[in-house]
Formats: sequence, structure tokens, C-alpha cells
Amino acid sequence: MNRRDFLKTAGMGVAASALAACASPEPTETSASSDLPTLDWQMATSWTPALDVLFGTAQKFADRVSALTGGKFKITPRAGGELATATEVLDVVSSGAVPIGHTASYYYIGKSWVMAFGTSLPFGLTASQQNAWLFAGGGLELLQEFYASKFNVIQFPAGNTSAQMGGWFRKEINSVADLQGLKMRIPGLGGQVMSALGVQVQTIPGGEIFQSLETGAIDAAEWVGPYDDEKLGLNKAAGFYYYPGWWEPGPTVEIQINLDEWNKLPAEYQNAIQAAAGEVNVTMAAQYDSVNGEALERLVNSGTVLSAYSDEIMQAARVKAFELYEAKASEDAEFKAIYDQWMIFRARVQKWNFTNEFSLLEFMEANQ
Amino acid sequence: MNRRDFLKTAGMGVAASALAACASPEPTETSASSDLPTLDWQMATSWTPALDVLFGTAQKFADRVSALTGGKFKITPRAGGELATATEVLDVVSSGAVPIGHTASYYYIGKSWVMAFGTSLPFGLTASQQNAWLFAGGGLELLQEFYASKFNVIQFPAGNTSAQMGGWFRKEINSVADLQGLKMRIPGLGGQVMSALGVQVQTIPGGEIFQSLETGAIDAAEWVGPYDDEKLGLNKAAGFYYYPGWWEPGPTVEIQINLDEWNKLPAEYQNAIQAAAGEVNVTMAAQYDSVNGEALERLVNSGTVLSAYSDEIMQAARVKAFELYEAKASEDAEFKAIYDQWMIFRARVQKWNFTNEFSLLEFMEANQ
Repeated sequence: MNRRDFLKTAGMGVAASALAACASPEPTETSASSDLPTLDWQMATSWTPALDVLFGTAQKFADRVSALTGGKFKITPRAGGELATATEVLDVVSSGAVPIGHTASYYYIGKSWVMAFGTSLPFGLTASQQNAWLFAGGGLELLQEFYASKFNVIQFPAGNTSAQMGGWFRKEINSVADLQGLKMRIPGLGGQVMSALGVQVQTIPGGEIFQSLETGAIDAAEWVGPYDDEKLGLNKAAGFYYYPGWWEPGPTVEIQINLDEWNKLPAEYQNAIQAAAGEVNVTMAAQYDSVNGEALERLVNSGTVLSAYSDEIMQAARVKAFELYEAKASEDAEFKAIYDQWMIFRARVQKWNFTNEFSLLEFMEANQ
Repeated sequence: MNRRDFLKTAGMGVAASALAACASPEPTETSASSDLPTLDWQMATSWTPALDVLFGTAQKFADRVSALTGGKFKITPRAGGELATATEVLDVVSSGAVPIGHTASYYYIGKSWVMAFGTSLPFGLTASQQNAWLFAGGGLELLQEFYASKFNVIQFPAGNTSAQMGGWFRKEINSVADLQGLKMRIPGLGGQVMSALGVQVQTIPGGEIFQSLETGAIDAAEWVGPYDDEKLGLNKAAGFYYYPGWWEPGPTVEIQINLDEWNKLPAEYQNAIQAAAGEVNVTMAAQYDSVNGEALERLVNSGTVLSAYSDEIMQAARVKAFELYEAKASEDAEFKAIYDQWMIFRARVQKWNFTNEFSLLEFMEANQ
């Protein structure tokens, strides 16, 4: 819809009315500071410490919680693979083997496609729209209810990578035909869409992407964006870098906590977790928006070919994405309940952004 | 610059390298939780409680600080006018008459144009870019140094309205000629630019805008965006609503604290302030992005004429804005130091956003 058509659809929908209530579970008890317990929690993460923004965000969260509690509540982030593999953080937190984790919910869409909403969906919400949905549009309440009943876990948004890039290819990709049979590392629903477009989707942990791409075991891969992709050396294994990352417009990462452990925490510690998670949600996106520009300059200067996906590929991906969502909604009531609410919110926040901020960005891009 | 010209300017600049260090002053001491003092601070704000997102953000910040400290550190937000007028919060915090405030720094550009950077500049940074500059681009360090030396104040970003609208007019505005002699309520550097375009700029507190506009004492006014503007009833006093709010692409509001009071706080309380400020920085933007869409629908449905500023006005405003910045930089070394750093950061973050997120938004707007 063009913003000039605003009037036509202006009567639509009723969502996002849970606005004033930013999702914050009420503390379960009140404690006097003097008798707070000393806790020492190990935290499973999905990140290698070399990814300094992702792992650094887990560390910054833990540091703030410690500082907020006079050092009494200590949380130690552990690299992916130490307490659990990168994509099994939810499992160990759910079972109670580990009290807390820092991960991306869409690693767990094998359990339910609902888990995609916690991170990002293809052609979904930008980082600011995702925050609007989670904190003011009822999204976090819906997801917390789902996590609690399904996994005995409570989760809080705790970082966002900002918009991701469209991945690395060993050869040029101009059409949907060029995608046929390509082996690509891409997780989540982005992988489902690529699969529907004829790609052979591979699941490979971050640490193994470079070698797979360099040896030609895979033809393409996506990771995060210029800064992290450069750290993995992906530019040395593939020459073509595509934008935009249509499958991840604004992915959230999150703190997950075993619900029994959460319920045992004094109110101050529950508050420390929520405040620190909220704070790093801002600072992580800020870091990525800051460092990605510099990294993209370096990549282009060292020979990476930067290209936009063709309109043919974008259109085909968009159609397939919504076909997949509709099909899933028709067979999975849990997915449908959140998808329907999310679609109404998405339409409204897009209209607002397209009317105002986007028209200013259009002007600024045309007049630099 | 078009994103296709990325290569040409890719070698530019060195800014934003303070990236990993998100601006957080080190706590001055470590305390055991058991001997934390009981504090009861009154907080001056620039907001009327009727503006539930702005005043509510001050309240949410105060509530979280209290919850983080077992109720020992109590902060009570007071409406604009109670402890200080809406535009004198900095003065009472600077003097020490009040320990803490919640306000917008650009209300104080009469003291120095540097204060505009803490909020927003015409054709400047969007909310996410502003966070990137403040938290990862060195902006907050630069501003904190300035506030400390000039006002004996330390400040923390604590909210963002997201992109604002372009204001209300009693008649249609199609050209720069139409602006001549119009009396408009618009603060900050936006007002300076409007003045350079021939507008008679008025400074009127939020609570008096409606009456001035309704009686015709002024011809135009800007406040925040659809949700807050509707609360003030501006649509009942003027029929034409313009976008985009080119003078405020992503305005930050902030917590200001008297530096002597800050230095006396135990580390836990300093941490509580920083974490709670960071958290409400996300939730306030989320609330505005969520409620503005609904409010804009209501306004359009009830007869408000929604229009884009003409390209002639946009171009003239852009040229005047940068003429003003350049002129100020040539006479004010403090402004120039921050402006130069900000301009380099702005160029780089814009390039990154235009390449990636913006190209996806363009596609999504064209294919809804």
C-alpha cells in the first residue's frame, strides 16, 4: 500500500491496544536488600566469544546484573558448545540443567514455528518495529505465555542485530533459476523460504561456515552482517555479497530463564534481569549499526562485489514467505493465534513508518 | 549519495571507532547491599501527566529504580511547572536545587547549540541512528563531557519519541512563499530553520498550544506526533497535518542528574539509574511507534487533511539547516567539535542503513 492510500484502509483493525502496558511480569515478592542471597549462575549462550558484539552483549548483561546487586548475583556467560551446543540453549534451560541462556529463538522452529516471532520473520518487522510489537503491541505477553506453557521458560528481549544482510554467494545470483539446487547455509524461516525457491538448505554452526564455503561444500551462506561476517572471513570464501537481508529485517536475541529458577529469585534480582535485558537491547543494536558501516566499507574496498537481490528474487521470496505462513496457520492453531495478531500490528506500524520516517529517509537518500 | 555510489566514498573517515565502549561511566565505589542509604528524590520533568507516554516514561524509570533497590531509592516525578517550568529543568538540576530531571536537551539551545545533539537536529539521525551515535559512536561521551564542564550535570538517554510529525497548519502550505510571516510554535533548531525560511517562531509551552492555535494567535504548531497531538486537541484547532517531521527524525529525551549528587550515590544506585534509563529508552520508542499508527487513523477518519511537505519546502529547509550548522560551527568551537564528529558518523550510518534496511523498506512499501 502506498502511503497516499492511507485513508482507504484507515479504519482497519483493533490490534496494538495493549499499548500502555509494556510487558513486565510483576515481581513475585519484595525483599529487603540486606538479606539478598548470593547466586552464581552459569549462562549457556549460542555465541563464540570471537563474535564480540553478540557474546559481548551477554557479558554486558551479566556485568550489569552483578553491579545492580552489589556483586551478589553473578552470571557467567559461557561460549556456545560449553554448556550446550549453539542451538540447544533452550533445551538445557527448559530442563533446568542450566538456569539461564542467551540465544535466538528462531533456532528452535523445529519445536514450533511460533519461535520465529521471537527473532524475526522474512518480510517481517524492522528492529524498531519488533520492539514496538514486543514491548507495546502485546507481542511479548503472547510469547511469554507460549514459552511458559511449552518450555517452562520465561524470556526477555536482550539485543537486536539490526537489519541483516542477504548473504554470501560464490557466484552471481540474478534470478530464481540461479538459485536452483544451490547449497546454502541459512537457518529459520528464511531457510524455509529459500527451500521453497529451490535451494538445498544446510544447517551449519557459525564456526564451520567459513570452511564449508571455502571448500565448496556449500555455495552460499548467511550469518549476520558486514562486521560479524568479516570476522568469520566469509569474504575470503565467496565474492558476492547481497542485500537486503529480507529474511531478517530486525532479529531479536533473548535471555531465557528456567521458570522454576525465575520464581525463586527475589524481586530485586528479577528487576535486575529485566532492566539489564532492556538496556542491552538498545546497546547491541547501536553497536551493530555503528560497526557495520565501517566493515562494509572495508569489504567493498577489498574486492567484495556488493549487489542488490533482483526484483524477481525479492518478489518470489515474498510470495513464498506468505504462502508458508498461511499454510502453517491453517494447520497450527498456536502459530495462527500469534500470526493473526502480528499481521494486524505489522500493517499498522508499517503504515505509520511509511507515512512519516520513511518519507524523510527517502528524501535524505535522494539529497545527500 | 545513492547507495549504488557506495564504492566511491567508501574510504571516508575514521569516526565511530569508539564502538565497543558503550558510554557508561564507571561506578565510583562498591557498596554492600546491606548498608545502602534510603533516598527520596523529587524529579523535575518537562511533561504534563496527561502526556502519558512522556510522563509515564519518567514514572516507569522511577519505578524500576525503586524496584532495583528494594524500595530504598525512591524517585518521584513531578509535572512540568511544579519544581521548575518545562524548559528550566536543566537549570534547577545544574544549581542543585533539584537532584534529578527528565527533559529534552534541545530546550536549552539558548545556552549552547551543542544541546541540540542530545535530542535531534533537522535532517539528522533517526531514533536507531541516534542510539548508534550515542551508545556506540562516541556521542554520549562527548556530550557527557560537555554537560559536566558546562552545567555540573551528568545525563543518560532515557526515551525517544521516534520520528515526529511535521506539524499542524490552519491553511494549506504548498511553497516557501506560503510560509512567509506565519506564526508557528516550534522549538529548537527546527525553529531556527523555520525562522530562516520566513516563519515568525513562537515559544509556547505544550499546555498553551491548543488555545493559541484555536484563537488564531498562531497559524501553526508542532508538538510530537499523532498520539500526543490528538491528546492536546490540535486537530480541533487546525485542519492540515504535514509530514515528515524533518526537524526531529528521532528525538531523545534524557535523565539529567546533578553531578555532586551523582558522585555521592553508591555504585548500585548509579547502576540502577543507567540500567533503568537504558530500558525506558527502548520502551518509550516502542510505545510511540505502536500508538501513533492508531492515532493517525483516527485523525484521518475524523477529517484531518494529511499531506506531505512539498519538495520545494523540503529542499529549502535542508539547505537552510546546513547553512545554519556551518555558520554556527565557524563561530563556536564547542559546537564545531561535536558537529564534525557527528557529520562523519551520520554519513557512515546513513550509507549502511540506505544500503540494507532502507532498500528492504522500499521493497515492502511498494509490495504490501
